[in-house]
Amino acid sequence: MQPSVDLAIVGSIGIDTIETPTEKQEEILGGSVSYACAAASFYTHAGMVGVVGTDFPTEFRKIWENMSIDLEGLQTVEGKTFRWSGVYEENMDNRRTLSTDLNVFETFSPELPVAYRSAPYLFLGNIHPALQLHVLEQVHDPKFILIDTMDLWINIDKENLTQVIGKCHMLTLNESEAQLFTGEFTLNKAAKQLLELGPEYVLIKKGGNGSMLFTKDDIFLLHAYPLDDLKDPTGAGDTFAGGLMGALAASGKTDKEAIRQAMIHGSITASFGVEEFSLDRLKRLDRSELEARIGEFKEMCRIACADSEERM
Amino acid sequence: MQPSVDLAIVGSIGIDTIETPTEKQEEILGGSVSYACAAASFYTHAGMVGVVGTDFPTEFRKIWENMSIDLEGLQTVEGKTFRWSGVYEENMDNRRTLSTDLNVFETFSPELPVAYRSAPYLFLGNIHPALQLHVLEQVHDPKFILIDTMDLWINIDKENLTQVIGKCHMLTLNESEAQLFTGEFTLNKAAKQLLELGPEYVLIKKGGNGSMLFTKDDIFLLHAYPLDDLKDPTGAGDTFAGGLMGALAASGKTDKEAIRQAMIHGSITASFGVEEFSLDRLKRLDRSELEARIGEFKEMCRIACADSEERM
Repeated sequence: MQPSVDLAIVGSIGIDTIETPTEKQEEILGGSVSYACAAASFYTHAGMVGVVGTDFPTEFRKIWENMSIDLEGLQTVEGKTFRWSGVYEENMDNRRTLSTDLNVFETFSPELPVAYRSAPYLFLGNIHPALQLHVLEQVHDPKFILIDTMDLWINIDKENLTQVIGKCHMLTLNESEAQLFTGEFTLNKAAKQLLELGPEYVLIKKGGNGSMLFTKDDIFLLHAYPLDDLKDPTGAGDTFAGGLMGALAASGKTDKEAIRQAMIHGSITASFGVEEFSLDRLKRLDRSELEARIGEFKEMCRIACADSEERM
Repeated sequence: MQPSVDLAIVGSIGIDTIETPTEKQEEILGGSVSYACAAASFYTHAGMVGVVGTDFPTEFRKIWENMSIDLEGLQTVEGKTFRWSGVYEENMDNRRTLSTDLNVFETFSPELPVAYRSAPYLFLGNIHPALQLHVLEQVHDPKFILIDTMDLWINIDKENLTQVIGKCHMLTLNESEAQLFTGEFTLNKAAKQLLELGPEYVLIKKGGNGSMLFTKDDIFLLHAYPLDDLKDPTGAGDTFAGGLMGALAASGKTDKEAIRQAMIHGSITASFGVEEFSLDRLKRLDRSELEARIGEFKEMCRIACADSEERM
């Protein structure tokens, strides 16, 4: 029997209130698993593992259904949905959390539907490392596991985090988180230390400055697509990772070349995501726009193919 | 008659005292034209236009001579050489100037030897825009002119700066300078405005995050080579631009493809430069090391060649 989803994604679901230097939006759909599943949905059949409260708006659920995201792993629990509010500073690089109300997310225990347990691809979005470990106990040897995390877990539960990272194929984190985790300033040294925890790949995200994929043998450098405007960077990392995992699942592969290609897809999906708040841009994005920008982006990054390498 | 140099470079020469979080070096060779000529010397016959005082150490001049830099345009004036001292903060991103003593640089008027005036390539390093204009009055229609600048001139003499930019083929500046000049936050919009001043190319430098080349029609994105260690970023932008112009002069071309290739050379030359203070690394760098890292770098940036583009 085929698994019902090719990619299972676990993470948070929130209702966000976000302020940027030019705009404020209240009570909009957010959360790592929402962004990641939306991005993955362009490429593969993704299943969502998360929790919402009984107050969760039907129209938000509709957005996911319209993107053909599998919601069998979505729990609805008596109470209020997780709320988060934050504000972005002038240059959009730094954000400050104004409030966090965990609500039903506080007692969330991710339980994978049977149909998700043999999904070949698994993305452990940013949640408590003990919960990420709990997910790993339920799955049947996925072909490829990506784990994301955040500064909070590095600060308060490095032990469990280290353990779960050791069980994954790829770790992704931000530049500053990589530095925090390792105490190293250069990303080369930070990545080297993180690779020693076990994963074959370490993917460091640098926001508008792109991303870097490290293995024991080499490095892959990817710029971010340069945008005319950026409205809301919330969820960009989750969209990137979700698009990456979706594209990788679609390829059926896990090798380095496939990951390079999947990173391009993730990066471009994220570039659309930040053009508007919440899933506003992604929900009306079509595959041909995505493909067109990917083609444009590849041309922007093209430095040389074999035959033109030795001009000097 | 052939011009005696293929590339003329105008800029500052300083004796620097530099403090980083781990080290302090006093009275070392610095200045934009020193870094730029050193980088260009790996590719072409470059001539230096600058000024030093009678206190200028013979061993510093020897470093340039050993790199086969043409010094006919170097003026020696009674008095002390320009001194600069600065300190880098923890993350090497921000530096603070501690002191600036212009000395003989205060009355510097760049005069090009006859043999430099028909050089096909010209790099106007970061000096007062009025002096950059003065250089342009002396040259005989160079094939390609690159101009660099800094926040100071944007703040105090935007008028002359705007005028000289309009006479150049390419403008290079830092991310923050592009934002300061235009008042635009995204580099796409900033570059668009700068292109309207006249240059065909705008090259925005992002330090350790790479660089972006803008034309009216397209964008080229280049990462920085990821280093294990970075000792002193002083002069990195000048080294980048000098290597770029040297490689471009060596190619004899000025088209977009040639510039993409030349940027790679400039970027890699700069990556060596920052590994040590002053010209310490560049003066013992050999061409084969440079070529090896260029090859490695191209592999790091390779996203796809034509035939592998459509895997998904």
